[in-house]
Amino acid sequence: MFFYLSILLRKTVDNQYLDGLMRPKSIAVLGASSDPTKIGHSVIKNIIEGGYEGKIYPINLKSEEILGVKCYKSMLDVPGEIDAAVITIPAKFVLEAIDEAGKKGVKGLIIITSGFSEVGNKELEEQLVAKAHEHGIRILGPNIVGTLSNAEKLNASFAPILPLVGKGALVSQSGALLIAIDMATFTRRVGFEKLISIGNMSDVDFADLVEWLDKDENTSSISLYIEGFKDGRKFMDVARKVSKPVIALKAGVSAHGAAAAASHTGSLAGAAKVYGAAFQQSGIVQASDLGNLFDLSLALSLQPPMKGENLLIITNGGGVGVLATDAAERFNLPLKFAPKDVQDELKKHMPVFGSAKNPVDLTGMAGNDWYHDSVKFSFAHDWVDGLAVLYCETAMTEPMDIAVGIKKAIDESGVKHKPVCVSFVGGEKSEKAMQWLVENGIPAYAGPDLAISALSALREYARMKEIVSEPEEKLENIDKSAALSIIKAAREDGRDALTEIEAKQVFAAYGLPITATKLAKSEEEAVVMAKEIGFPIVMKIVSPEILHKSDAGGVKVNIKDEVSCREAYKTIIVNAKAYNPDANIHGIAIQEMAPWGTEVILGSVNDSTFGPTMMFGLGGIFVEVLKDVTFRVAPVSKKSSLRMISEIRGAPILAGVRGEAPRDREVLAETISRYANMIVDLADEVSESDANPVLVYEEGRGVKVVDARIILKK
Amino acid sequence: MFFYLSILLRKTVDNQYLDGLMRPKSIAVLGASSDPTKIGHSVIKNIIEGGYEGKIYPINLKSEEILGVKCYKSMLDVPGEIDAAVITIPAKFVLEAIDEAGKKGVKGLIIITSGFSEVGNKELEEQLVAKAHEHGIRILGPNIVGTLSNAEKLNASFAPILPLVGKGALVSQSGALLIAIDMATFTRRVGFEKLISIGNMSDVDFADLVEWLDKDENTSSISLYIEGFKDGRKFMDVARKVSKPVIALKAGVSAHGAAAAASHTGSLAGAAKVYGAAFQQSGIVQASDLGNLFDLSLALSLQPPMKGENLLIITNGGGVGVLATDAAERFNLPLKFAPKDVQDELKKHMPVFGSAKNPVDLTGMAGNDWYHDSVKFSFAHDWVDGLAVLYCETAMTEPMDIAVGIKKAIDESGVKHKPVCVSFVGGEKSEKAMQWLVENGIPAYAGPDLAISALSALREYARMKEIVSEPEEKLENIDKSAALSIIKAAREDGRDALTEIEAKQVFAAYGLPITATKLAKSEEEAVVMAKEIGFPIVMKIVSPEILHKSDAGGVKVNIKDEVSCREAYKTIIVNAKAYNPDANIHGIAIQEMAPWGTEVILGSVNDSTFGPTMMFGLGGIFVEVLKDVTFRVAPVSKKSSLRMISEIRGAPILAGVRGEAPRDREVLAETISRYANMIVDLADEVSESDANPVLVYEEGRGVKVVDARIILKK
Repeated sequence: MFFYLSILLRKTVDNQYLDGLMRPKSIAVLGASSDPTKIGHSVIKNIIEGGYEGKIYPINLKSEEILGVKCYKSMLDVPGEIDAAVITIPAKFVLEAIDEAGKKGVKGLIIITSGFSEVGNKELEEQLVAKAHEHGIRILGPNIVGTLSNAEKLNASFAPILPLVGKGALVSQSGALLIAIDMATFTRRVGFEKLISIGNMSDVDFADLVEWLDKDENTSSISLYIEGFKDGRKFMDVARKVSKPVIALKAGVSAHGAAAAASHTGSLAGAAKVYGAAFQQSGIVQASDLGNLFDLSLALSLQPPMKGENLLIITNGGGVGVLATDAAERFNLPLKFAPKDVQDELKKHMPVFGSAKNPVDLTGMAGNDWYHDSVKFSFAHDWVDGLAVLYCETAMTEPMDIAVGIKKAIDESGVKHKPVCVSFVGGEKSEKAMQWLVENGIPAYAGPDLAISALSALREYARMKEIVSEPEEKLENIDKSAALSIIKAAREDGRDALTEIEAKQVFAAYGLPITATKLAKSEEEAVVMAKEIGFPIVMKIVSPEILHKSDAGGVKVNIKDEVSCREAYKTIIVNAKAYNPDANIHGIAIQEMAPWGTEVILGSVNDSTFGPTMMFGLGGIFVEVLKDVTFRVAPVSKKSSLRMISEIRGAPILAGVRGEAPRDREVLAETISRYANMIVDLADEVSESDANPVLVYEEGRGVKVVDARIILKK
Repeated sequence: MFFYLSILLRKTVDNQYLDGLMRPKSIAVLGASSDPTKIGHSVIKNIIEGGYEGKIYPINLKSEEILGVKCYKSMLDVPGEIDAAVITIPAKFVLEAIDEAGKKGVKGLIIITSGFSEVGNKELEEQLVAKAHEHGIRILGPNIVGTLSNAEKLNASFAPILPLVGKGALVSQSGALLIAIDMATFTRRVGFEKLISIGNMSDVDFADLVEWLDKDENTSSISLYIEGFKDGRKFMDVARKVSKPVIALKAGVSAHGAAAAASHTGSLAGAAKVYGAAFQQSGIVQASDLGNLFDLSLALSLQPPMKGENLLIITNGGGVGVLATDAAERFNLPLKFAPKDVQDELKKHMPVFGSAKNPVDLTGMAGNDWYHDSVKFSFAHDWVDGLAVLYCETAMTEPMDIAVGIKKAIDESGVKHKPVCVSFVGGEKSEKAMQWLVENGIPAYAGPDLAISALSALREYARMKEIVSEPEEKLENIDKSAALSIIKAAREDGRDALTEIEAKQVFAAYGLPITATKLAKSEEEAVVMAKEIGFPIVMKIVSPEILHKSDAGGVKVNIKDEVSCREAYKTIIVNAKAYNPDANIHGIAIQEMAPWGTEVILGSVNDSTFGPTMMFGLGGIFVEVLKDVTFRVAPVSKKSSLRMISEIRGAPILAGVRGEAPRDREVLAETISRYANMIVDLADEVSESDANPVLVYEEGRGVKVVDARIILKK
């Protein structure tokens, strides 16, 4: 009871408690040691050497002082308050320490100690969390390197040094990688404000940190190295609301990689495609590899999103201009020729053999002035939504002068709402110039394609944020209780699979356009219903024991009149009984025979990480051979459904090919949206479902769900 | 006449002449100047400062000496021999200089001077080449930066410095990029033995240089930055024969990029897909971007090809292990679990919570010994075809020690026929360790995916080389003269499009399995032929003036007997005359009605760069909507045709899906090969052709070309 109360309490004071953990005014180190081979030594040493300005309390039973700082035998002996405590003592003593921390009023624990769920010791980890929550304490870890912040001058970790100063924060689920990244900030010249090791995420998880970092004034962007979420939906809910860019590198996206990740951190990797969809739906930029994580972190921590499609490239080298142009297409930001007024102006800053089209080639003769003037003009021009400035080091120009010229031009343009990224290809002088640019807020890269990739990420970020901020749509005519009573009846019947008719009734309760289907329990009923629906009709056996209806001779199509209807009824019953004499026959489904249309499929699964998730694709070879399907974590708005329809490779089929009329994508989108809404609404009951096939007709003629399947949770 | 003789002569002495150009014992600089703002000054200065050990002859009308070296007014005044001359004088004087060079017996000219075909002055450039060839002189350029070689200590260019020493050569079609790359060798720590600026390729082209570099003992690999070839087929012929790895970065692969490249160098970019096919067919590794060109050059200049699929990854960091595993799948080298004996041995070198499966995770506790022992064992194990050793810098280990341990293990394994690549993620110590590894012949990269990408390139190289070295197949039963006489007859008829019957006759001459088709000129003939072929048949109007046969009512299908045949004959003739009273009617094609099969398409174009090139794909939506087609420069062997069949996305359709029997891919491959052979053989006559549709039947039942089209060159 007290436990649940503290959970409730925790919800309301989240940020305050993370403040204690992330920016403590005082810090204790349990297990602080004078022995340089111990992690407890590294941590206390790093806190002192990092220049931390709060109070430091080493806790050690035997020592009087460590590295000149007075030691205490217990946290309870410490005279002042303790905001955060770093735990480096062996796993078996941690539970006791939490009690002590609770008594002392510690707000957050940074538990470096390992030997918990990552080695199968899940129970002890759960006990830690329960005890901490009893005391209202938050836990980062266990099994972490620690946490580092330049702004707080706090290196509460066993990573040897605070990272190069930067504006973004980075949270890593791999400790070894965090240490390596820490050191690599100096060689890659991409700094971070904070590095946070998240470890086993027993309590504080990615969502908590992202939420807190979003409000931290020292952080301009949030980078994540993720192996697996525990609760994907919690993360999405938070990510959708953050105002800062979030960049995610998801490891374990390959089948073998997912297995490796699972054995590494013990967390379930989930389906890579679903992670991809979830990131997109939450406005999160996905990095492709470690280098890309650095590159995109730099761009997104320094530059605003790119709000339109018009990318202009200015270069002094035709070669890098062409490479950048190729990259622009590869990264989904294809170049267009600049409008005439832009070209006319730019021509003034290049020799006759230059090119003002885009890429703008100032030629190898370009010096500081041409760069400055063309950058200043272009950046201020309305047509330009984003700018890539490329430079090949020459024997005639000084890279630093060019860099200064670019920065000056950007400043003088007065424009702050567009992104600019730079690439210098050259030697040490170019490297220094790029370093200067980065220090002055302009991302600079050693290859033209890297600058383009960064701008593309800034564009993608803007596109996603637009989608995330779309208002939610309210679907009308939904009768959840009708759906639930159909499900309840099936459960009472001892079944966890609905019959086709039942599944269609559930679909109908969510406004999905099913083919009219009625259950006839006699030949007479069949005739009456067939007339109501209108010939031609389809007739199918309805029996929970007969799943493969065609194999059982239980399906007759294209029945055109009463005589055939009667005949079919008798034949189907005879066939079904012959096929399975014990089958419990509910009757025969009398079904509208839908005219031919383009076949699509809707399907759903309960993803282990993200919950109800849906899949959409064209039927037949598209799904079976080409795996041409797209995913979304449900619910899905109608607008997003339209995007699903247009992003599959077979999209032109629905848009109308070979002179065929376009299909009714509007109604299809609404169908997708209703289906997605249904699987979320019924998530507690339904384990998986599909609508296969759904026939899509010409524009204005709608769609028909021809077959429906629902499997209930056990 | 003399001109052609010199061309002939040139062919036999190519290498000798390029020796003069590429490794001259003496060098003259025309336009050498004391004025530091002149290129002629940079070049002479660079030659002297580079430490060139041959004779240097500055040529200048006014100076006595430049930078302490005696000047001559003319090459003819030079006392000794001149192997190569660098030309930096204005374009208008170059022709005269070539005459002087000819008289002096100069072997090669490095023409830095610009103002030729790149600005439209094509004629002058052609005159240069003609004159040089009169004298048996080879030209590098014009419009180049020059050529640089560490082995020769020769910087005959206006790039400021010789590149960092490395083993590979790099040839660049962009001068600005070459200078920038030169300087970047020092910051990227990827050296080159030679940098060669190829410019307008008026004479010496990529093929010439690749051929020469293959024999140069100082060069271990050849890297190319390509905007466009002049003669793609010449390049392929050379590239197929080289024994050293060739790495190509092709710029202008996007539509907009191709336009930019064309405006940059004036060379036609050709179709990106055809370039890709040509590289693959010649065993050339294609780099994806500038960084990748550096990375792959490093790997291919230092390591042997990877001859099998088994990649083993050893790491101390689970995170980078997972990232590398993902990369392996992305780069087409998916990991497998190591066999039991490998796992058993490796388990000895890690704590219990490590993993020996693959990726092998030695854990963060791994020191030099574990690295050394596991690398030595693995590299020597038969199962392992290639090794990636990854290291995350930790606070407890010294990167240099780990590097030394890795190198020692590799050496001690005694294995030299397998590749190893390394990645260290960390700070300056890691960078130094990687530099040491590279200097000791082991490619090392700052990201795990980069090491995997390098190994994947080494694997791809081995795969391609295997294909390139497949023996050529001889196709039997080809009757070229029959094909030519059909073409001749059509030309005599004043046509440049063959009728369907003629096209099929040409196809038949190359052994392609066409549907039996005969030309009936009367109703009686039609009946006789129909009986010979066997009912059911198809009947089609044959008239050069009626291209859209169906629109003209000129096609009747599924004709089952004599009566229908006679009726159809009459109807078609009436319809055709009504459709176009002036049409010249050859008769009516009586054609075997092929049963339904899987539709595929073969097509050909004469690519502007590579000549006869073929396309293969599945018909219908696969080609129209999904553009699911693959290209090869013709000819194509049967084995390669099988690869074409298996590399399209729709490949499972031909392999048999949804319980269908596999299609006859053997006969389809032979058909593709025969078609490819035909388009090369008839390249002088045929401009384009296609076989559409070709129906493919079940295994053992062959294929049928149902429709054929050939357009002749004008």
